[in-house]
Formats: sequence, C-alpha cells, structure tokens
Amino acid sequence: MDRASVEETILAVIDCMRASNHCFSKCLQEEDLLMVAECIRLTKECSEVCALALNALETDSAFTKPIAALCAQVCDTCAVECGRHLHDHCQRCSEACLRCAEACRNLVAA
Amino acid sequence: MDRASVEETILAVIDCMRASNHCFSKCLQEEDLLMVAECIRLTKECSEVCALALNALETDSAFTKPIAALCAQVCDTCAVECGRHLHDHCQRCSEACLRCAEACRNLVAA
Amino acid sequence: MDRASVEETILAVIDCMRASNHCFSKCLQEEDLLMVAECIRLTKECSEVCALALNALETDSAFTKPIAALCAQVCDTCAVECGRHLHDHCQRCSEACLRCAEACRNLVAA
Amino acid sequence: MDRASVEETILAVIDCMRASNHCFSKCLQEEDLLMVAECIRLTKECSEVCALALNALETDSAFTKPIAALCAQVCDTCAVECGRHLHDHCQRCSEACLRCAEACRNLVAA
Repeated sequence: MDRASVEETILAVIDCMRASNHCFSKCLQEEDLLMVAECIRLTKECSEVCALALNALETDSAFTKPIAALCAQVCDTCAVECGRHLHDHCQRCSEACLRCAEACRNLVAA
Repeated sequence: MDRASVEETILAVIDCMRASNHCFSKCLQEEDLLMVAECIRLTKECSEVCALALNALETDSAFTKPIAALCAQVCDTCAVECGRHLHDHCQRCSEACLRCAEACRNLVAA
Repeated sequence: MDRASVEETILAVIDCMRASNHCFSKCLQEEDLLMVAECIRLTKECSEVCALALNALETDSAFTKPIAALCAQVCDTCAVECGRHLHDHCQRCSEACLRCAEACRNLVAA
Repeated sequence: MDRASVEETILAVIDCMRASNHCFSKCLQEEDLLMVAECIRLTKECSEVCALALNALETDSAFTKPIAALCAQVCDTCAVECGRHLHDHCQRCSEACLRCAEACRNLVAA
C-alpha cells in the first residue's frame, strides 16, 4: 500500500465518521423517528467501524485490509439506508459513506 | 487503589456497558420512539464511556480516576433517563448504571 | 444465532478484551521490550476489535458475523504471538485469545 | 458553544488522534523501546480519548465539556512525554497534543 492511497483513504474515513456521527445526532431530533430508526442504528455502527479503520490505517496494522473490507461493507449498507431519506444530514452521510466504501475497496484491491 | 476494588469496579462497568448496549438496541425497536429518543442517545454514550473506563482500569492508567469520575457522571444521567421508562431493558439499564456510577465514585474517593 | 451461543461468545470476548488490555499494560513494564514489541501492538488491536465485537453482539448487529470473523482472525494472530512468551500475562492472554477465536468462529458457522 | 469553535476543536482533535496513533506505531519500531515505553502507553490512551471527544463534539453531547476537559488533561501529559524525545513523530505528536489541549480548554471555558 503506497502512502498516497493510504492518506486518501484516511481522509475518506474521517469524513465518513464525522458525517455518520452528525447524521446519528440529527436523526434523533427528527419528528418521524420510526422512519429513521434503522438510520440511527447504522450511522452509529458506521462511525464505530470507521474509528477502528482509522486506527488500523494510521498504525500500519497487519489487519488493515480485512478491516477496510469490513468498513466498506458497513458503509455500503449505511449509504443505501441514508440515501432513502431526504434530510440533508442523511443525504450527506450517504455520499460520505459511498466515498469511504470506494476508498476502502481500492485499498483492499491494491 | 487496591486490586479488589478495581476488580469490583471493572465488573460493574462491564455489566453497565452490556446493559446500555442492549437497551440501545431494544429502544430502537420500540413503537414509541419519541419517548425513548434521549434514552437511545444516552445509552450509546454510556457504553462508549464504559469502554474507555474499562481500558483505563485494566491497564492501570494514570487517568483512571478522572475517567471513572466522567463515567459516573454519564451513568448517573443515563440511569435517571432510563429509570423514567417502564420497559424491562430500560429498568435493567438504569440499575446497572446506578451500580456502575457508585463503583466508579468509590474508586475515585479511594 | 441462538441466544445461548451469543451469550457464550460475549463472555469469551469480554475475557479476551480484559486479558489483552492487561497483557498490553504488563508488557510495557517488561525489561526486554524489544521481545514483546509485537505483543504490545497486537494486544491493543485485539482489545479494540473485541470492543467492536462486543457492541455488535450486544446490539444484534446485522454485521455480527463479519465482525466476529475479523475478531477471530486478530485473536488467532495475537494468540500465536503471546504464546511465544513465557510471561504469565502473555500465556493467559494467548489462552483467552484462542477461546475467543473459537467462540467467534462457532458463531460465524452457526 | 458556537459552531465555529466546535469545528476548530474537532479539527484539532482529529489531528491529535492521527498524530498519536502514528507516534504509537513508530515508537514500537524504535530501537530504544525502554526510552519510549511511556510514550507508547500515553499516545494510545490519547487517541482513545480523542475518539471519544470526537463523538461527543460531532453529536452535540451533553457531556462535551467534561469530555473535552478530560481530553485536555490527557493531551497535556502526552505532550510533555512526547516532547522529551527527539524523534520526528514524537515532536509532531507533542505539538498536535498541545494544540488539541488548548482547543479543548477554550471550548470548556466558552
């Protein structure tokens, strides 16, 4: 893994972790909570997996690839769920998740 | 800090972390989500602070006391919020939070 | 996944998380640090993955199986590394890692 | 807390979390491990507290101030320890910790 692609992945993971946490918090303030219940669950799990991926990427972990693969999987699911809602925070989270998933998959394939 | 009281605190923190995560998940399946929205937010934060406290206690961290004090503060708030709801998972979480807060405060005072 | 095997896995993960954190802290106090450098790195990563697995197991996460598979992989590597050292904390960590890896793999296969 | 100062703090915390994890990993590859043993311990604890602070800041947590105060305390200690070593990664970590501690204290005082 070259340093440039690791750095690019780190930035995508940070952006996704931030967007997920923000979406989690904003969803909890929505009126129609039933509609975003799955979003609340997935954004928190997404931010937790991103935090683990960040540690792995930053420390040259031997498990960077399997952790990145898991991160891509969670991000993909979160992107689909958030993408179903029109709230700004959901749409932004969905986009950040897609970019993060793509960056992680590129790293795994490298 | 003697080893016996550290061990007692660790067990209370583990129990609280488990009860908080369980309550978080079960609250997200409740019909009246608006009523438990604050519970969902607090149980997740509680489990995150418990995880940090667990690491500190298990590694003889120099910051065990300030971390335990923070843990007690979050647990107290979570215990009050969960205690307002009659769901089994909320009541059990409230009790686990109270025991954890007390154990953490005892450790800080020791 | 039946509740009994989930509960059994949770207990194995908690034990492994505790043993890993303890081994991390004790290794940092050893005289021959060079010998345990890889152990220090792996025990911390092991405790981080165990924390993620614990959250997944306790919240009936949709990603419990891939997370458990990752946890088994990290635990296996940590068990081999810790198993090479005669310190009590390394030996105990190695055993806890093996039990955790086995419990996680059983869950994945279920 | 105005959004601009929260955003400024978030960026300082992210930078500190990254520098701490990087320093942790690089210290484990140093020849004189005994000299950096305390650094290894503190950088990992620093990155863990930064991760918690990040979650709190991004989710408008009711505990943002006590968590930021704890983060400043851990960062200060880590900055002093890393500042004692001439390795590039230690010096950069020390500076990132100082900036993070200052940003956190400003937020607490706001």
